[in-house]
Amino acid sequence: MHPLLINGEWRPSQGKATFRAVNPAKRQPFGEEFPISPWEDVEEALVAADRAFDQVKTWPGARFADFLESYAAAIELRAAEIVSMANLETALPVSPRLKDVELPRTLGQLRQAAAAARDGSWKLPTLDTAANIRSYLGPIGPVAVFGPNNFPCAFNSMAGGDFAAAVAAGNPVIAKGHPLHPQTTQLFAEAAHEAAEATDMPRGFVQLIYHTDHENGARLVSHPLLAASGYTGSRQAGLILKSAADQHGKPFYAELSSVNPVYILPGVLEEKLDALAAEFATSALMGTGQFCTNPGVVLLKKGPLAEKFISAVATKFGEAPVGTLLGESTEVHLRAGIVALQRAGATIVTGNKPVDNSRYCYSNTLLKVAGNDFLADPIGLQTEAFGNAALIIVVEDDEQFVEITRHIEGSLTGCVYSSTNGRDDALYEQIEPVLRQKVGRLLNDKMPTGVAVSPAMNHGGPFPATCHPGFTAVGIPASLRRFGMLQCYDNVRADRLPPLLRNENPGQTAWRLIDGKWTQADVNAAR
Amino acid sequence: MHPLLINGEWRPSQGKATFRAVNPAKRQPFGEEFPISPWEDVEEALVAADRAFDQVKTWPGARFADFLESYAAAIELRAAEIVSMANLETALPVSPRLKDVELPRTLGQLRQAAAAARDGSWKLPTLDTAANIRSYLGPIGPVAVFGPNNFPCAFNSMAGGDFAAAVAAGNPVIAKGHPLHPQTTQLFAEAAHEAAEATDMPRGFVQLIYHTDHENGARLVSHPLLAASGYTGSRQAGLILKSAADQHGKPFYAELSSVNPVYILPGVLEEKLDALAAEFATSALMGTGQFCTNPGVVLLKKGPLAEKFISAVATKFGEAPVGTLLGESTEVHLRAGIVALQRAGATIVTGNKPVDNSRYCYSNTLLKVAGNDFLADPIGLQTEAFGNAALIIVVEDDEQFVEITRHIEGSLTGCVYSSTNGRDDALYEQIEPVLRQKVGRLLNDKMPTGVAVSPAMNHGGPFPATCHPGFTAVGIPASLRRFGMLQCYDNVRADRLPPLLRNENPGQTAWRLIDGKWTQADVNAAR
Repeated sequence: MHPLLINGEWRPSQGKATFRAVNPAKRQPFGEEFPISPWEDVEEALVAADRAFDQVKTWPGARFADFLESYAAAIELRAAEIVSMANLETALPVSPRLKDVELPRTLGQLRQAAAAARDGSWKLPTLDTAANIRSYLGPIGPVAVFGPNNFPCAFNSMAGGDFAAAVAAGNPVIAKGHPLHPQTTQLFAEAAHEAAEATDMPRGFVQLIYHTDHENGARLVSHPLLAASGYTGSRQAGLILKSAADQHGKPFYAELSSVNPVYILPGVLEEKLDALAAEFATSALMGTGQFCTNPGVVLLKKGPLAEKFISAVATKFGEAPVGTLLGESTEVHLRAGIVALQRAGATIVTGNKPVDNSRYCYSNTLLKVAGNDFLADPIGLQTEAFGNAALIIVVEDDEQFVEITRHIEGSLTGCVYSSTNGRDDALYEQIEPVLRQKVGRLLNDKMPTGVAVSPAMNHGGPFPATCHPGFTAVGIPASLRRFGMLQCYDNVRADRLPPLLRNENPGQTAWRLIDGKWTQADVNAAR
Repeated sequence: MHPLLINGEWRPSQGKATFRAVNPAKRQPFGEEFPISPWEDVEEALVAADRAFDQVKTWPGARFADFLESYAAAIELRAAEIVSMANLETALPVSPRLKDVELPRTLGQLRQAAAAARDGSWKLPTLDTAANIRSYLGPIGPVAVFGPNNFPCAFNSMAGGDFAAAVAAGNPVIAKGHPLHPQTTQLFAEAAHEAAEATDMPRGFVQLIYHTDHENGARLVSHPLLAASGYTGSRQAGLILKSAADQHGKPFYAELSSVNPVYILPGVLEEKLDALAAEFATSALMGTGQFCTNPGVVLLKKGPLAEKFISAVATKFGEAPVGTLLGESTEVHLRAGIVALQRAGATIVTGNKPVDNSRYCYSNTLLKVAGNDFLADPIGLQTEAFGNAALIIVVEDDEQFVEITRHIEGSLTGCVYSSTNGRDDALYEQIEPVLRQKVGRLLNDKMPTGVAVSPAMNHGGPFPATCHPGFTAVGIPASLRRFGMLQCYDNVRADRLPPLLRNENPGQTAWRLIDGKWTQADVNAAR
């Protein structure tokens, strides 16, 4: 059985239960046995993380930056191995996905997080010099990170966005790996362990549990020694953990599910129907539709053009190769989602068929529903069918676009395509204010699948897309703020202040809000 | 029965149940009957708030600023009446409290919030011009504000810090008044209604429910039409509401309770024991101890000086006039808190006696407990005895200062008094990193009772002091951010962007983070 990374060493699980990776392209388990940890493993990790935090909580950001940069370098040395293993475990293509996009993104995130940690601006240092009150976001404490199945690198619990953000904010991390890619996670953990030793991080600063049950997960996120959690995964498991964390007042930042509605307004549909159908089909089937920001619902106005669009998309769905899904559970949930949508009133346009028993997959499936029927069961018709399926809503009239928007659940994204000649502007203006409150990111004339790592990105949104509408999981430095606590120093003596809150700005790189003015200067210079 | 302010008019409650204010200095009910609202009242307010939000959600901050400024002016016209009514309802003195400090603070908060709304910097506008991704904090939607008993003006649900922050962030407010000061709240609501009409705010923008039960409160904070809540009050009621809000993913910003530990280290105790005893007694008894930041626990090192300090404080507690408590429930809870502390192992030094049956009050009460006994029941010995009572912990040795700190619950504040000659520095350095993670605001050489309205203030802290360690309830503009949702615009056409996210910075007053640099300039000038 493969050992766990706990308290700075690879040690055996205290339990006996195991699992193995499965190659979804062959439906075959492969590789070593990995432990399903009992509570004792998790508790050991918690104690070690708490001890590590005692050591690092006063460290400057540069220490965490050193680790993150060393870690990125260690990953690069293992890049070919990681990419190849991730491909075996997830069936996501090496190229153009894992090697060309996802791993570079992972490295970029770690390095951007390092730069943010070194710089310190993410802490929003705020100085009131007259009152001698100073505050910033300090580290919150040990963080648990639950990674999802669909990004074995960029959201890996041991290397992805939440990991990078929690570490850059100065916190130890207990990673809970996703059981669909344990060996990829193991490779990351080996690199992380090596980097932690090379940069003198305390034992227990980065730790890894491969798998544990929901009950232990709930104990972990609500434990007195844990400060906060980052979670990306299914809504069902996420809500179990959230409930436990909430009861103990522990922040639980989660990305749960999202249908990501796409509005194609009548004017633009007339202008470039074929191009839109192609753009949508590509986005909907990219990565076999297994993106958090996959466009799951399209709204079109009833009429011959809508029918033509649906049939164009159906053709493309039929022609496109059927991608392999991440695992058995993904296939099961996708099929269950399609059944739920049909029960709620949607009908199949194309697909909904098994295609190849030798791998996990299901035909590219397009469903449709009339706007009136959607309004009869808006919750049922927003069942997430995670994977290569999408639902088109054929909307009755302009008013119904707005009415349906009122029933859209909190979502990560909302896209509106509209004519450039102004024909759709009146309708846009009716839809936008309603849609704006429902989604974290509003797009124009563009599919939602790409999530740029930009300081202005919001990969977040109102519940149930996430658990707090004020935070983003992607985009540095904003994603770090989830893992900070607001620390105020009132009348604290100058030599006892953390360096970033002293009159002199160490390094002159951090932006600080001094007496109402953002500046990188020292206090006296800023006045 | 006094009417409610719902949907822009004063209308009768749909229920029959009522309550009246009580003069705590006389134990006598007085004034009109006020409604205890059934669900139907609350639901009407929700529907009206939702409608109001539809109208205001795209408004510029200046509109909310106009209202807040007009409201402050309307309050000023009623200042004498408000202060006198607040005094009758709470027994807090007109001078130096209500007239000289609390009402001016209330007006100051409303005007600072107005300035923040007008300026827009609170939204943290963030522009990535190369990617054309832009984001800021937009309004979150209708907010419920539950005010506490202890600040009839500065935290009034209809005029206090949460009200000002929620409105300045662009949100309609449903105020749930505190039943101990309905007539004060009514006066505020009359001024607010007048200001709302004068500044053309939509009906339902500011509304008032005087009282309702916990069940309706739970339905309110978790209702689909409500976006978030601000709550200040008892931990028990707060946790009921929090649980309901959490289940529906609604942010619930609450300030629940806090013991606010004060450390007096051995060196400084030797230097100025008498002055410290006087400073502590004054802070502990100020406002009859009814401050969220009241110093409820003092830690001293065992020895003759500790005994001398305790006896000096006991003398002052005995000599100081016994203030009147806010109401019957306050007296009941204070006495129950003292009983609970005794059961947990504390002993009475002085007080713990009824003093005057003609008003709500209880003798100034000082308790003490040995450090070892504290460690035997740290939760029981942190029972909040809200009012004029305090507990002194006599700590065994330096190590135990740290050990006890590890058991301190999340608190709003933590104060450390230490010698200026360096004698206490080694101990300070041991205590500080542990205490730092337990409290929102760390003070040196100063009691915690004053909470300056400063941009750098943190009136917040880890659970159970509040429900999220990243936010403050006092301090503008930071307190506004609780009532914002992160709104990202990805590739959105220039003329459809909200003004604050366009290339031109309207008014050049808002600070915006453009391509990594904070500036008040336009995009082109900033490059």
